[in-house]
Amino acid sequence: MPSISQKGQMMPASPIRKLVPYAEAARKRGVEVLHLNIGQPDIHSPEVALEAVRNNDLRVVEYSHSAGNESYRKGLAAYYQQHKIPVTHEDIIITTGGSEALLFGLMACFNPGDEIIIPEPFYTNYNAFAIQAGITVVPLSTSIAQGFALPPAEAFEKLITPRTKGILICNPGNPTGVLYGREELETLRDIVKKHDLFLFADEVYREFCYDGARHISAMELDGIEQNVVLVDSVSKRYSMCGARIGAFVTRNKELLATALKFAQARLSPPTFGQIASEAALQAPRSYFEEVNSEYRERRNILVEGLNSIPGVLCPMPKGAFYCVAELPIDDAEKFCVWLLEEFQHKGHTVMMAPAAGFYAHPAPGKKQVRLAYVLEQDKLRMAVECLREALVHYARTTAKAQGAEAN
Amino acid sequence: MPSISQKGQMMPASPIRKLVPYAEAARKRGVEVLHLNIGQPDIHSPEVALEAVRNNDLRVVEYSHSAGNESYRKGLAAYYQQHKIPVTHEDIIITTGGSEALLFGLMACFNPGDEIIIPEPFYTNYNAFAIQAGITVVPLSTSIAQGFALPPAEAFEKLITPRTKGILICNPGNPTGVLYGREELETLRDIVKKHDLFLFADEVYREFCYDGARHISAMELDGIEQNVVLVDSVSKRYSMCGARIGAFVTRNKELLATALKFAQARLSPPTFGQIASEAALQAPRSYFEEVNSEYRERRNILVEGLNSIPGVLCPMPKGAFYCVAELPIDDAEKFCVWLLEEFQHKGHTVMMAPAAGFYAHPAPGKKQVRLAYVLEQDKLRMAVECLREALVHYARTTAKAQGAEAN
Repeated sequence: MPSISQKGQMMPASPIRKLVPYAEAARKRGVEVLHLNIGQPDIHSPEVALEAVRNNDLRVVEYSHSAGNESYRKGLAAYYQQHKIPVTHEDIIITTGGSEALLFGLMACFNPGDEIIIPEPFYTNYNAFAIQAGITVVPLSTSIAQGFALPPAEAFEKLITPRTKGILICNPGNPTGVLYGREELETLRDIVKKHDLFLFADEVYREFCYDGARHISAMELDGIEQNVVLVDSVSKRYSMCGARIGAFVTRNKELLATALKFAQARLSPPTFGQIASEAALQAPRSYFEEVNSEYRERRNILVEGLNSIPGVLCPMPKGAFYCVAELPIDDAEKFCVWLLEEFQHKGHTVMMAPAAGFYAHPAPGKKQVRLAYVLEQDKLRMAVECLREALVHYARTTAKAQGAEAN
Repeated sequence: MPSISQKGQMMPASPIRKLVPYAEAARKRGVEVLHLNIGQPDIHSPEVALEAVRNNDLRVVEYSHSAGNESYRKGLAAYYQQHKIPVTHEDIIITTGGSEALLFGLMACFNPGDEIIIPEPFYTNYNAFAIQAGITVVPLSTSIAQGFALPPAEAFEKLITPRTKGILICNPGNPTGVLYGREELETLRDIVKKHDLFLFADEVYREFCYDGARHISAMELDGIEQNVVLVDSVSKRYSMCGARIGAFVTRNKELLATALKFAQARLSPPTFGQIASEAALQAPRSYFEEVNSEYRERRNILVEGLNSIPGVLCPMPKGAFYCVAELPIDDAEKFCVWLLEEFQHKGHTVMMAPAAGFYAHPAPGKKQVRLAYVLEQDKLRMAVECLREALVHYARTTAKAQGAEAN
């Protein structure tokens, strides 16, 4: 039997999904699992988008243009312009999710062995796409004690080598919910300009900024127009993760033409997803207002609840719908398994994503978990209650086990 | 401005799409362009598939399982079993088109620098995916005079090196329409077994076999169960190119688990496309019978027509809906541009794909074109008439130009 490739061996298994069998076992023993582990929102997709798909009158489900339907690209450009992102439809390639946009970008910009700096903790799949493109992720540590704030320019400078070709940010951030403002973005601009790097900005959570903050796009920065790649997606914006529609956006014409060759190779993005996404542009502003207000409430319930538990530290996220919490435990993965295998409180338990998977080197995340506040408020209250009880029980169980070992 | 990657520079621009601006110009001067250049069928998608999408009652367009919806995988396994392909749903990952299945497979099996042997001419994008995976395509020449038949084992043996890791076939073949039967497949099996290679079989045109031939899948071959990867797609089968639904199929559990990690990184295949594809499994047998009978007629009109033109050679395809023809000209690309820029016959002209793009080294394809018989019969008759006239005019034009040069 021929052997699997090195890339295949290196590819990480999803840290978010590897606890799934334990959750299934929990359900089998009659426990309701509160899923804080994945970013699958329960928010309805905009009615106008669902209607458009239901009312489609296609007789042949044809390929679209490799860059996506022009009408959708024009609509999307208008949406960006409303958000102060100065692009036209000719700066946009519609992709199969944000994932594909990122992969096109990495393949088009980086040679194998080139380095990309990513503030960590970061979205796990950045690692997976870097492995596919054969590039090296250089993590830049941020700390939970500082609310995962962007480190100063000097911290970047220390990591820059002749192989450094770019920086990747997620703003607002998955998994931390951190939001970079004008100051952080200008720090990034200066580094990018000084070292002539690509700046990849994953802004799929753009619409989810709280407490009155306005999202600032990396595309708004002056002087690095040729360096910035915007990675976007409708998945979270319109709660349409399954539409698999994203966008690769850049004003760098040579880069866009290169990315288009990758897009041509895979022929076209999904037709039905494009129909839904183009229609979703018509979703009223009130759709986002309602969704945002709901997420803000959920965030407050979850994060305030977590911080009220002794020994738990959870910085208040300013955007997206995740938070990272440090727990008074030794090993978050063991704790997450224990929650599913052995614990219940009033018939419930909690499923979370161990945060180690969001670090290039797992150590700093060992006591941390990522939680997505994508459940109804009552469920989030129950989740906090579960965790509070669980941590008490777990401390006793662990102490007992250690006592037994000591004897 | 930072530089584009080597891969980005190497990626081929689509040879099928690069004539598009000339076609647009032709339309602007009022000429109807008969599109024989792309494999976008005009056949209606199955009504049952379109209905399923129109009647969907989703409120949230969620991610599916990374391997695709289980109900669809089970239905697809049953479809394969009907076609004597012995697999279960656990051998299948639903992908975003056949393109993604192929890319997952190449990334999971090949290290950069490994070699894959592909009989040529071959589907252009095989080159593109090989570049993305960093692997080397080793073309195995086939000849139009022999109807692009699979060469004997010795021809493969001559190309095998310590870096050879696999063979890729397209059966029935794009661009040639060649169909490999039991004998050819057993030749392949013996080579694969002897050298312990992967055998990638792109069988997306399975349902399009003519003149009573039964399609034989590489998955039916005994003794190489761990070596075979089936690349599949609903695009052509159900005329649903825009659904972007394919499949990666193998009985090699380690390979499937590896491919699943690539699938998890991109989260899930498109939800609406899966709804359409699962429903399409219910398309009556008569759907294929009607489609096949239509394609057979079209093939006969086009290929018999082409062979009736002096100097044109076009082997009769046994499957798919393409043929490759050699024309009495020097440079097919120039001729194709001339057809769009300068020629018309009764208000029509023809757009074809120069075949050089289907060869690893363009020379053998220089006088050849690929034609897709995806148009109505009357249009195909007109296309043949156009080509007959065009070749007469072109010969005169060329002779005159050469005469002028000689003076």
